[in-house]
Amino acid sequence: MSQPSAPAGTVMLDEIRQQARLAADWAGAGGYRVDHIAHAVASYAPASVTLIARGTSDNAAGYAKYLLEIMGGYVVSSASPSAVTLYGAKPRQARSLCIAVSQSGQSPDLLRAMSAMREAGSLGIAVTNDPAAPLAVQADFVVDLAAGVEHAVAATKTFTCELLALLDLATAICGTQAPERAGIAGAIASVIAPHADLDDAARLLGSALASAGHLLVVSRGASTPIAHEGALKIMETVGLPALSYSAADLEHGPIACVHAGTPVIVIDSAGPAAGSLAHVIARLVDLGAEVIQVGSGDAAPGIRAHIPVPRLDPLVAPIAEAIPLQLLAHRLATAMGHDPDQPPGLTKVTRTS
Amino acid sequence: MSQPSAPAGTVMLDEIRQQARLAADWAGAGGYRVDHIAHAVASYAPASVTLIARGTSDNAAGYAKYLLEIMGGYVVSSASPSAVTLYGAKPRQARSLCIAVSQSGQSPDLLRAMSAMREAGSLGIAVTNDPAAPLAVQADFVVDLAAGVEHAVAATKTFTCELLALLDLATAICGTQAPERAGIAGAIASVIAPHADLDDAARLLGSALASAGHLLVVSRGASTPIAHEGALKIMETVGLPALSYSAADLEHGPIACVHAGTPVIVIDSAGPAAGSLAHVIARLVDLGAEVIQVGSGDAAPGIRAHIPVPRLDPLVAPIAEAIPLQLLAHRLATAMGHDPDQPPGLTKVTRTS
Repeated sequence: MSQPSAPAGTVMLDEIRQQARLAADWAGAGGYRVDHIAHAVASYAPASVTLIARGTSDNAAGYAKYLLEIMGGYVVSSASPSAVTLYGAKPRQARSLCIAVSQSGQSPDLLRAMSAMREAGSLGIAVTNDPAAPLAVQADFVVDLAAGVEHAVAATKTFTCELLALLDLATAICGTQAPERAGIAGAIASVIAPHADLDDAARLLGSALASAGHLLVVSRGASTPIAHEGALKIMETVGLPALSYSAADLEHGPIACVHAGTPVIVIDSAGPAAGSLAHVIARLVDLGAEVIQVGSGDAAPGIRAHIPVPRLDPLVAPIAEAIPLQLLAHRLATAMGHDPDQPPGLTKVTRTS
Repeated sequence: MSQPSAPAGTVMLDEIRQQARLAADWAGAGGYRVDHIAHAVASYAPASVTLIARGTSDNAAGYAKYLLEIMGGYVVSSASPSAVTLYGAKPRQARSLCIAVSQSGQSPDLLRAMSAMREAGSLGIAVTNDPAAPLAVQADFVVDLAAGVEHAVAATKTFTCELLALLDLATAICGTQAPERAGIAGAIASVIAPHADLDDAARLLGSALASAGHLLVVSRGASTPIAHEGALKIMETVGLPALSYSAADLEHGPIACVHAGTPVIVIDSAGPAAGSLAHVIARLVDLGAEVIQVGSGDAAPGIRAHIPVPRLDPLVAPIAEAIPLQLLAHRLATAMGHDPDQPPGLTKVTRTS
């Protein structure tokens, strides 16, 4: 735990590094225990899946949405908690499987949204780092992330554990050929180890960000939620605006705010989205953007920095891609004199209603 | 239509102003003709609704999501087209009603996503301004927006017509007590008419944006998609980053990039979300943000400008709230010497795959 005299960012960096051990433990244990949940889900035979989450956990839920759509063909909804908490919506009994994702399991709006769905007949699963939290108590099934207490306000290791747990859950629920998992823990250890690539990218990004005042994070497909999480992590710790989009959504308008010198991080898994990302990188380079490419794809022409990630199945690659973004956020924040362990105005447990 | 010699922004401003007539025509005609669609949907008895859209149309779809969740208790999914187009996902037959929203009805990814759902048994509705477009030809039912050709790249009148059409469709599908519609056309005419409030807000916003380099747009509940659309409109025409969040999501992290002098537009409908928005406005004022409040709520303490909107049912208020944001985007762009009719790098029809 943080000592009062520890340098700024010590806690966050320690928690980022713990992810290597957590991923190795996960691989060694054969994943989270979710088979009994998958059996119950199979009996329930859901017509759709509803995800309930906010902030970082909502980005993990976004990854689960891609997995469930791609591997299982499910219709997947991201719940708007305010429909229930503010407007009094009454969900219909429509056999929707409800998965709530929350590090703390505390926020009142998530509790009420899940409660309303369970009253309408939903089967409810909580994915949380606190199996005694109200959200877990209320659920039919709980996946305990077992990430250990997370002290830094900016979540890192609980995000990775959420991704791993949701990979296990989605794979078990979809009952399809599982994506190749064997390389995940090694890839995570590899990207956490010190690299000159990360140093170079952090310097370039810091300099471009100081000039431009904002950045963009772009990906496509299953890595898009990682772009959103990377942007959130940078906003939380650095306090500067970070826009994030899928490459397709970027072209439907927001590319208008990319100019000469704008820093843009592009996450490229070298998977089915590679063509779409190559196209958007070429457009960004034409606009004079300072493109930093993260992922297992070959470095594209005109980019300014490249942080390689070991090649993985494109459906699990996002788990390793998240970590360079965490490290960049930590580097940028400490270089600017901020304490990413305790960003001003944020608290570890956010209670919204 | 635009003359080559017309001043920058003439086309967009003309299309913004056309919305008064379009809304009056809509009210006079008793809305879009959707009863036959609602009957077919009732026979189909959907277990969920899937919305397919991008860009501005995706923000209109976001409004429909709130309506269908609140009025009908539906599980509503926003489709990820790449699941189908890049990963080859096969949607399951799960009785999901598919509603695709697209001004042009042209983008290949929307076509393929709807096609895959219809092959799996979905009933497909296209909401488009071109009833001869491929998306409309493919659908089981079409709602023709009949907004007239839209020339400005930044969509305005087609967005409002999408909102009106989706209000009609959602009300008919949900079969519940319809929200009060009588005041909508009058409120739209009222916010389009010249006002000193808008002039003041545009001046303040222009000045704060020049200093801060970015802005935020915040709302909660059914007006949240209007915050997203307002931010997109400003990005498209002004070329500066505009972040947008629900008040709850803002507190889960991004509020860290609000500082003294940051311009924040808050859309407040004086409805069920008013308490949540009053709380967030107080936090923003404490942080020294330059808050511009838009909507029918009373001006909150500490805000710097207020653009009132006539009081409407909170479920239809978003339709009128969109227009002051369009006018602000147009004002900011022309004041900065940009041509909002033709933003660099954007085209009227965006084709993504």
